Amino acid sequence: MKARVHVTLKPGVVDPEGAAIARSLGRLGFGGVEAVRVGKVFELALATSDTDAARAEVEAMCEKLLANPVIQSYRIELAD
Amino acid sequence: MKARVHVTLKPGVVDPEGAAIARSLGRLGFGGVEAVRVGKVFELALATSDTDAARAEVEAMCEKLLANPVIQSYRIELAD
Repeated sequence: MKARVHVTLKPGVVDPEGAAIARSLGRLGFGGVEAVRVGKVFELALATSDTDAARAEVEAMCEKLLANPVIQSYRIELAD
Repeated sequence: MKARVHVTLKPGVVDPEGAAIARSLGRLGFGGVEAVRVGKVFELALATSDTDAARAEVEAMCEKLLANPVIQSYRIELAD
């Protein structure tokens, strides 16, 4: 089955990459951009077809490698 | 209004970051990971409240800065 993990900075955590992109958009003439935040998406192909097992395994992957739980939050979507 | 832009590599484009993450997950003991692909998400706060204008502007941002249309595809979601 497939898992999609969305990793984003927690509210309040400074996002220098997003700020740089917002400035660049302004310089390119896009005047109406108030803020930009950047996140990552991981699309995983998993051998298991057990949804509960997959969710538990992907949560462990997030805690150990895919996200930094101190400053990032993550959301997991599973699909067949 | 808010716009969320999902940028992913087109199918067939090699993803070395995803391959490295898949290997790392294997070394950490997650045996059932067949493949990993990595994408980005940009969350934009826009001054406009006109949905059609926002979509056109965000599409232009994707073509000029947020994505590389040669190797990446993008998907735009708008919300109030």
